[in-house]
Amino acid sequence: MPDQMNLAEFNVRRRVEFCETDAAGIAHFSSFVCYMEQAEHRFLRHLDTSVLRELDDGYHLSWPRVHVECDYSGVARFEDELEIAVSVEALGTKSVTYGFRFHCDAEPIAQGKIVAVCCRMRPGQPLQSIEIPADLRSRFSTYVKP
Amino acid sequence: MPDQMNLAEFNVRRRVEFCETDAAGIAHFSSFVCYMEQAEHRFLRHLDTSVLRELDDGYHLSWPRVHVECDYSGVARFEDELEIAVSVEALGTKSVTYGFRFHCDAEPIAQGKIVAVCCRMRPGQPLQSIEIPADLRSRFSTYVKP
Amino acid sequence: MPDQMNLAEFNVRRRVEFCETDAAGIAHFSSFVCYMEQAEHRFLRHLDTSVLRELDDGYHLSWPRVHVECDYSGVARFEDELEIAVSVEALGTKSVTYGFRFHCDAEPIAQGKIVAVCCRMRPGQPLQSIEIPADLRSRFSTYVKP
Amino acid sequence: MPDQMNLAEFNVRRRVEFCETDAAGIAHFSSFVCYMEQAEHRFLRHLDTSVLRELDDGYHLSWPRVHVECDYSGVARFEDELEIAVSVEALGTKSVTYGFRFHCDAEPIAQGKIVAVCCRMRPGQPLQSIEIPADLRSRFSTYVKP
Repeated sequence: MPDQMNLAEFNVRRRVEFCETDAAGIAHFSSFVCYMEQAEHRFLRHLDTSVLRELDDGYHLSWPRVHVECDYSGVARFEDELEIAVSVEALGTKSVTYGFRFHCDAEPIAQGKIVAVCCRMRPGQPLQSIEIPADLRSRFSTYVKP
Repeated sequence: MPDQMNLAEFNVRRRVEFCETDAAGIAHFSSFVCYMEQAEHRFLRHLDTSVLRELDDGYHLSWPRVHVECDYSGVARFEDELEIAVSVEALGTKSVTYGFRFHCDAEPIAQGKIVAVCCRMRPGQPLQSIEIPADLRSRFSTYVKP
Repeated sequence: MPDQMNLAEFNVRRRVEFCETDAAGIAHFSSFVCYMEQAEHRFLRHLDTSVLRELDDGYHLSWPRVHVECDYSGVARFEDELEIAVSVEALGTKSVTYGFRFHCDAEPIAQGKIVAVCCRMRPGQPLQSIEIPADLRSRFSTYVKP
Repeated sequence: MPDQMNLAEFNVRRRVEFCETDAAGIAHFSSFVCYMEQAEHRFLRHLDTSVLRELDDGYHLSWPRVHVECDYSGVARFEDELEIAVSVEALGTKSVTYGFRFHCDAEPIAQGKIVAVCCRMRPGQPLQSIEIPADLRSRFSTYVKP
């Protein structure tokens, strides 16, 4: 289905582990929050960076999250293989909104968002939000939804 | 401050455990999703029910969640004691929207929501959404935000 | 039953949360490792200290674990209330061996151990094992199994 | 290094996720218990079976664990890639003892064990330990340590 394919998506596969299920027999709803973060981190590695990165001034850049949400329309069970499509829903001056769509056996089962703010970390001081460095912004921009 | 007190809130205290922290030195953002669910379950016990309850027809009632969200404005660290205020933001025919406000040392640090749907569980069959039983509806209604 | 009571035990009660259960309908076996650590931390607070404590020289003391084990003889389910008895099985010069016995509805369901080493943490340097400070040793010694 | 290679080992690679770290900056010690179980489950899939398998009589076979232990000699941090070697340390009539050795950047950091008992699950009845089915026993035996 080529016209449904989103060129701006990064795709991750992830098997549901037993410790992520609950007594209802399904992946616990909080597990999807971790799946989103893990997909984000794989996406950042794909962009050749990391959620923790050293800046030119020796300080570290980090991405604390200010918002997360998830809507559930189906379930996943132990050993199911999730397909997770990551996209950049919005690219602000200092923040990124990631979108995540979960499928299992080609059925949509959940979709969610994480908003992360670009921050400089200095030991013993509060996090300071900063503009997303130009090289990162350029790498993110390829994945911004049209 | 009596006029700020919300009579419709149920309050829970919860200490941040070490296994809930992350390498940034704070409670991991997914931990708040579990804190919300745990506060919801304490609230249900306070209403003298449970997230798993037997129905008159022998089947079980459960509350699968269809939505979760959380906004973060601060952080919590190991051994911090969180104060969590639970309220019922909306009471539909078949669903409940819970609201959660997190404070730590009197500072607001996060607020979130869970939407749960009242369902009947029958072994080997899909979950079936049903109207919230009258006795439960009446107990929830005390906590609906004015 | 006074002659069964162990004066050297510290007792903790802990309800099984839903996110700690698995698709077998029981508390996941890894949850008991977290329960042991949480009981240890409550025990340390009871001794008026913490797993992270400042030393006189301004450095911090920590207790990395070098061994954990658990034997399971029963199960715990969602909303079960666990009774956890903490004792000090051995008190070495630089290490503590904690023992944990889990009961649920008066039935023994598990027992385990954690061995933690007293260490000094200095930023950017490897952990250094040190002798347990005298005041802490004295507080631990009350709970050493006869 | 052919004479160090253990033909009886099954090898798994696993990256440390951020949600698995703790405020000490390392993978939480309980994470290794989950890593062991996940490696066991990958091993079972490699043997073309699963931790949950249907038996000829329509009942299910499961592997509740009766013992877990882990010794820690090093640490792993966010994004480190763990190498986990799984072997069968002992193969009893009704139980399997798995051994796990963890390396990170060629350094040994932990080793552990899980003892799992072969059981038949029947709804509403207690688990019943049974002899390991012959086909499974034969597949396990290739990985028994000499």
